[in-house]
Amino acid sequence: MYIVIVGAGDIGTPLIEVATSGGNEVVVVEHDEERAERAAHYDCLVINDDATVKETLVDAGADRADALISTTDRDAVNIMVCLLSQELEVPNVVSVVHNPEHMSLFERVGVNTMQNPQRLIAEYLYRAVERPSIVDYMQVGEEAEVFEIDVDAGAPMAGTTISEAAQAGLLDDDLFIVAIERPDAESPVVPRGSTTIRAGDRLTVYAAAGVTDGVTSAFDTGDE
Amino acid sequence: MYIVIVGAGDIGTPLIEVATSGGNEVVVVEHDEERAERAAHYDCLVINDDATVKETLVDAGADRADALISTTDRDAVNIMVCLLSQELEVPNVVSVVHNPEHMSLFERVGVNTMQNPQRLIAEYLYRAVERPSIVDYMQVGEEAEVFEIDVDAGAPMAGTTISEAAQAGLLDDDLFIVAIERPDAESPVVPRGSTTIRAGDRLTVYAAAGVTDGVTSAFDTGDE
Amino acid sequence: MYIVIVGAGDIGTPLIEVATSGGNEVVVVEHDEERAERAAHYDCLVINDDATVKETLVDAGADRADALISTTDRDAVNIMVCLLSQELEVPNVVSVVHNPEHMSLFERVGVNTMQNPQRLIAEYLYRAVERPSIVDYMQVGEEAEVFEIDVDAGAPMAGTTISEAAQAGLLDDDLFIVAIERPDAESPVVPRGSTTIRAGDRLTVYAAAGVTDGVTSAFDTGDE
Amino acid sequence: MYIVIVGAGDIGTPLIEVATSGGNEVVVVEHDEERAERAAHYDCLVINDDATVKETLVDAGADRADALISTTDRDAVNIMVCLLSQELEVPNVVSVVHNPEHMSLFERVGVNTMQNPQRLIAEYLYRAVERPSIVDYMQVGEEAEVFEIDVDAGAPMAGTTISEAAQAGLLDDDLFIVAIERPDAESPVVPRGSTTIRAGDRLTVYAAAGVTDGVTSAFDTGDE
Amino acid sequence: MYIVIVGAGDIGTPLIEVATSGGNEVVVVEHDEERAERAAHYDCLVINDDATVKETLVDAGADRADALISTTDRDAVNIMVCLLSQELEVPNVVSVVHNPEHMSLFERVGVNTMQNPQRLIAEYLYRAVERPSIVDYMQVGEEAEVFEIDVDAGAPMAGTTISEAAQAGLLDDDLFIVAIERPDAESPVVPRGSTTIRAGDRLTVYAAAGVTDGVTSAFDTGDE
Amino acid sequence: MYIVIVGAGDIGTPLIEVATSGGNEVVVVEHDEERAERAAHYDCLVINDDATVKETLVDAGADRADALISTTDRDAVNIMVCLLSQELEVPNVVSVVHNPEHMSLFERVGVNTMQNPQRLIAEYLYRAVERPSIVDYMQVGEEAEVFEIDVDAGAPMAGTTISEAAQAGLLDDDLFIVAIERPDAESPVVPRGSTTIRAGDRLTVYAAAGVTDGVTSAFDTGDE
Amino acid sequence: MYIVIVGAGDIGTPLIEVATSGGNEVVVVEHDEERAERAAHYDCLVINDDATVKETLVDAGADRADALISTTDRDAVNIMVCLLSQELEVPNVVSVVHNPEHMSLFERVGVNTMQNPQRLIAEYLYRAVERPSIVDYMQVGEEAEVFEIDVDAGAPMAGTTISEAAQAGLLDDDLFIVAIERPDAESPVVPRGSTTIRAGDRLTVYAAAGVTDGVTSAFDTGDE
Amino acid sequence: MYIVIVGAGDIGTPLIEVATSGGNEVVVVEHDEERAERAAHYDCLVINDDATVKETLVDAGADRADALISTTDRDAVNIMVCLLSQELEVPNVVSVVHNPEHMSLFERVGVNTMQNPQRLIAEYLYRAVERPSIVDYMQVGEEAEVFEIDVDAGAPMAGTTISEAAQAGLLDDDLFIVAIERPDAESPVVPRGSTTIRAGDRLTVYAAAGVTDGVTSAFDTGDE
Repeated sequence: MYIVIVGAGDIGTPLIEVATSGGNEVVVVEHDEERAERAAHYDCLVINDDATVKETLVDAGADRADALISTTDRDAVNIMVCLLSQELEVPNVVSVVHNPEHMSLFERVGVNTMQNPQRLIAEYLYRAVERPSIVDYMQVGEEAEVFEIDVDAGAPMAGTTISEAAQAGLLDDDLFIVAIERPDAESPVVPRGSTTIRAGDRLTVYAAAGVTDGVTSAFDTGDE
Repeated sequence: MYIVIVGAGDIGTPLIEVATSGGNEVVVVEHDEERAERAAHYDCLVINDDATVKETLVDAGADRADALISTTDRDAVNIMVCLLSQELEVPNVVSVVHNPEHMSLFERVGVNTMQNPQRLIAEYLYRAVERPSIVDYMQVGEEAEVFEIDVDAGAPMAGTTISEAAQAGLLDDDLFIVAIERPDAESPVVPRGSTTIRAGDRLTVYAAAGVTDGVTSAFDTGDE
Repeated sequence: MYIVIVGAGDIGTPLIEVATSGGNEVVVVEHDEERAERAAHYDCLVINDDATVKETLVDAGADRADALISTTDRDAVNIMVCLLSQELEVPNVVSVVHNPEHMSLFERVGVNTMQNPQRLIAEYLYRAVERPSIVDYMQVGEEAEVFEIDVDAGAPMAGTTISEAAQAGLLDDDLFIVAIERPDAESPVVPRGSTTIRAGDRLTVYAAAGVTDGVTSAFDTGDE
Repeated sequence: MYIVIVGAGDIGTPLIEVATSGGNEVVVVEHDEERAERAAHYDCLVINDDATVKETLVDAGADRADALISTTDRDAVNIMVCLLSQELEVPNVVSVVHNPEHMSLFERVGVNTMQNPQRLIAEYLYRAVERPSIVDYMQVGEEAEVFEIDVDAGAPMAGTTISEAAQAGLLDDDLFIVAIERPDAESPVVPRGSTTIRAGDRLTVYAAAGVTDGVTSAFDTGDE
Repeated sequence: MYIVIVGAGDIGTPLIEVATSGGNEVVVVEHDEERAERAAHYDCLVINDDATVKETLVDAGADRADALISTTDRDAVNIMVCLLSQELEVPNVVSVVHNPEHMSLFERVGVNTMQNPQRLIAEYLYRAVERPSIVDYMQVGEEAEVFEIDVDAGAPMAGTTISEAAQAGLLDDDLFIVAIERPDAESPVVPRGSTTIRAGDRLTVYAAAGVTDGVTSAFDTGDE
Repeated sequence: MYIVIVGAGDIGTPLIEVATSGGNEVVVVEHDEERAERAAHYDCLVINDDATVKETLVDAGADRADALISTTDRDAVNIMVCLLSQELEVPNVVSVVHNPEHMSLFERVGVNTMQNPQRLIAEYLYRAVERPSIVDYMQVGEEAEVFEIDVDAGAPMAGTTISEAAQAGLLDDDLFIVAIERPDAESPVVPRGSTTIRAGDRLTVYAAAGVTDGVTSAFDTGDE
Repeated sequence: MYIVIVGAGDIGTPLIEVATSGGNEVVVVEHDEERAERAAHYDCLVINDDATVKETLVDAGADRADALISTTDRDAVNIMVCLLSQELEVPNVVSVVHNPEHMSLFERVGVNTMQNPQRLIAEYLYRAVERPSIVDYMQVGEEAEVFEIDVDAGAPMAGTTISEAAQAGLLDDDLFIVAIERPDAESPVVPRGSTTIRAGDRLTVYAAAGVTDGVTSAFDTGDE
Repeated sequence: MYIVIVGAGDIGTPLIEVATSGGNEVVVVEHDEERAERAAHYDCLVINDDATVKETLVDAGADRADALISTTDRDAVNIMVCLLSQELEVPNVVSVVHNPEHMSLFERVGVNTMQNPQRLIAEYLYRAVERPSIVDYMQVGEEAEVFEIDVDAGAPMAGTTISEAAQAGLLDDDLFIVAIERPDAESPVVPRGSTTIRAGDRLTVYAAAGVTDGVTSAFDTGDE
């Protein structure tokens, strides 16, 4: 793909790294001289100019790009860049949006967005201190979640099969074990009723009602 | 919980919002005056001082805190804060780490970390242009992924049952549909073999070998 | 009218003066502190905040304003302000546009604009040295112009009636005298064929083919 | 013409563009290094020095220039430049004046001026929200104005001839239609009594008593 | 006198001191805030504003002042201030001029000036190393000078009367001793032919052809 | 002479000009880079370094210089430079001193000084408004002064001989006319009793008791 | 004592702490506002002004002080402060000197000095990596040193008496053990010939020829 | 040795000088560009980069260095550098520590430190005014000190032998003269009972109870 990335700041920089290492043709537009210089260390073309000026985007080849991603930390800059990209008929335009109240505005003019990325990070960090046993998780709809959790040595479920755990009420109907990672297995194991959960397993679990205290208590000992 | 948050920048600010709205007692330490003032709009105590000075953390009550999260954008500051927190015996210390090469250092001194949060964002953005049909996803181990995908009107799988899809080779063994969100359903549906996949459904899918072109082609039409 | 003016810079400041002295209720939004303070000397409410944040415009009462004029020197800021104003349903939104290439973008999203105001000034200044006898002028369509010109003492037309001038070929068909200002008359005179043009008159002339050397030579002596 | 332009700021820059594209020999004097560099993109000679030093103007060839235009945003700089230009016997010296109270001073020392250009812009913008139907206008003397106005579909005058409009009292004696622009006509039409005004016409009108509510009501419907 | 002093810099500050200690009513206009504050330590009114704006000078009471002295280090500012002072009919206007080439311009608009004051200082310093025996001096016309010189113990003239010195050719026709200061005399002595010049005397001498090596050699020993 | 000049600021710059145009070998030491560059336009060697470091002065050849003049605007820098110059045995060291209270300190360590040069200027300017008829003057001892004054057309002394003026009491014993400059004479005239003073003459006068109102009233009309 | 400390920087600040906690009356002079504020946290009077101005030192009471210590990082400032202090007859004046070449200058004008304090630190740090077994040391004359060294468990001297060590050639004539600190002794032990040196002792040793490899090898094992 | 020095500031700079002149291979890491340039004047390799990034230290060759000394003025930077150095297995790591409360933290992670170097300097300076006769000193344990002192001409001990002084009670048991420097001796003299102490001698003395008024009074006259 031919990708134009606007902004080489906190978010833009790792994006450049990801996009260039994925074998894409990448052009970066960054107004700040110092940042532009740093971006030039990646395998991409860097244009040190103001992306809110149409000519700059034309110079960046936006009119023949497959996608443009606007990552600056100012919503006004991002919207201007996206509107200009639409004029240049970029097929796929994505933007970061910082102020949640501006989401509808971006949607109204037809831009795909990623809301408040820092909030995403914040929620991960908060989860790390609120439920330290949860390794990673993904929201599904309003309530449900898929999460990864490590089974402690003394946890109620350690040493039982899934069927036993269900019978013992450790796994209620809302919980469903999707996959099991084991230190000694190359790839995740598909669980069956007869599969024994061992201490040290990392489980991928689907929780229809989300992660609650009751949910985690089956897997960890509560000592942290 | 009594939580000390160090840094009220791009990551710290939404974290303060999340932590305070979760009903916790939050103390923020921020060196920059302007940021400190902005942080004071949340329901928390803000200390406008240098967190790499032990006395500052004592002032923040770190010695009786349940957790401390260090979110500054300098790894040197984060490690110093974490070491001081250990001296003050904070039970749960988490830090952002920006430079991936510094991960082992944080682990050696015993700090829980979250690696390079901006890279996480970058990967989400990149995925949004690489596979626009994927709504959200979570890595499981090295290769496997759980992902959400919307079923297009003209997609091969639209209108078939899961069993039919499996028989038709649309769903190979590596793919497993975990849940189905429907615009008209209140909560996600648990799929069975007889469940018919409809256009407009948002599926949560487990892919043992990760998301590849073959995986998404069953759900979308490929026109983007 | 209730008017919101965004930007209290070179253009915004005299606009505030004009708008307040016209008896309107004026609210000014200016991000720069120093400028905001200066604006506060006028009879208006000044909000020292970032107008590209929706909440700021709500604070400025944009949702009940009759009009909003965006005068900042960055097109990206102006477009963002205008889009937010539309969301707030301001009935009349006008913006300065600096880069001519951005005109179509503003029009596409439905904003009234005033293109590159400094260029207007520049053209006036240039005209002042190119045709020093022209006092003021207004473009009509592509070619035609209405202009004001002073009649020199020795000019061909000084002392002739309009009919005589037409007969003498001094006023061809493309020229049409709309009004005559005289030092001793209170208001402009409506010219007739028998009206004598005197040295010292300031004529308002309609020139179907625009102002050319031939046009001005009838009114001035060419010595400057 | 050989034109010296002092100042390459908001007003100077478009003036350079206008003057160079008019085929003149242009020399620019600008003290600020960054602005001087930008000015060098036009087809002109740029001198990056202080124009209030006589030697700089001599370097700029002011002693053989046809005209000098001083456009800086400080009246003190402009007056100094103009006085030095007089010493160098530049035949045509024009200056922007920012503070209206300084007009008489410039006149006393014999400099042609353009008063407060930003105020001009401000008045245009204000007019755009006060009388949105007025497209452009030009002041004639104290009260009279020439203006352009679009005829709305439902306006009283749409579909009538000029004679009928006059008889119906829609056009009183103070109003006089100078020219009519039509979307399908190449150049403006000279109106006669029998000319029918159509919706969509853009009229150039002379109003002896200036533009009032009564004046515009004949041409637009009042719905905005 | 009511004196307005513009500028409280290197020259303005000691001027404020001299003028206030002379019992005058002094108003100082200084744009720089810090300098304005320092000026306020003297017995004067300080206006911290831009003196190139007419209103500022009116606020300073320039319209009823006896004199205005402009001391800023920019000639453009000084000329503007002087022109405005003329408009306000200040009877006595004096200005420092830094660029010698601007002297004629100031004179043309009718301002009394003091040319390049720093050059004056420079010449004094240079004289101090070029002719260390000269204590002070004053230029008279093109060539002549009045100067003060100390008589060294071994100088040719020490111990002779003025008549003897003239006869001995030590004092040629171009030299004329105006006054003699003696350590033990209260006021300078008026010299006569019979007056003996003593080592230690400080002579005030008029030299029609200026100070040359020949002139000083009579008074000092040449050892320095 | 080989002269080292320290400081290329307000005083140093014209000093460099005077010293280089006098045919001396001049080395300039200036710490500020911009000033150093400007100084390099003169025919001298410029060292862009800190003169309070001994090595810098050695680099400037101070150890073989005939004289060193320190002109910076900080007394502390000047004293340090002078002390180092003494160590390097510069025969003639002169310094500007800004704070009058520091004079004794410079004298104690054996440095020739020029006190507060700006005050000198200030006194000249003040004299220009206090006694506008005085053109130039030089203090002699505590009270006496030599001054230049222009004879007004209507002045009491215009048209009288010196003897007549003395008899008429216009010239008392304390006043003594040293020389007369006339517009039409090439060099100043030596006055005698029979010399007639004419309007337009510029007199050099010695006033034993200094310049008072009585002294100037003989030469000017008092209208200014 | 009444002590004036000039400079509240890296060296001045701990000096203020030492001097105030020693019960002295301390006045601090610091030009930088921020530093002055920080200094005010100690029990001292802080004067936020320029110490190179005599009046400032008078305000600080230097004329009745017992001692003045100048600690700024500019030698020119320190020398000026010291000279002014001498004028004010401070009995004891000490200054830091940064440039070793300036030592003689300070001595010439009669100021006690402490040369290049940062170099002292640097030498300590260097010694710490060059001879890690040396704990502290003090230079005596050109060559001799007194140093502290820890006796390693396996060192040749561990377990021998001083007499035995001398006989075995471990302690040659140039070495002399002054005192022995022992973990279990309250104060250092005075060594005699019969005293046994134990591993873990910290010895104070006088080395007439300074510390060499041979000297340390008796006390440590050489493994570091 | 191969030594890496982090920081080229107040302490780092003289350390670079000491280390390079000792013939070591030195690499300097300094983030500030200006400081890095200055460091490059020494015989060392300078890396102008952030030492808290592991890669920088690898570039500096830390993985094969014999020692690393961290001298920056921020404890957080120093600890990060030291931790990274441990990862790179530098055998000898020393750091400056500024905040005394952070000493234990550095020790816990296993870094050799030098506490608050500026305080060391401060104590020397304070001693210089508190006991001006003490030339240098070294702390031994809690109380004891080795110090150098000059013997005044009129001091009680001048002219006595050490035995006599002991008998006369001038030297009590806690005092012990270690060495005597004499102006005319090449190296310090080893004292015996019969050695006569002369005025002008500089004694190295061991004081078991530290330096008190009683201790110094034997050597100086108390007049300062």
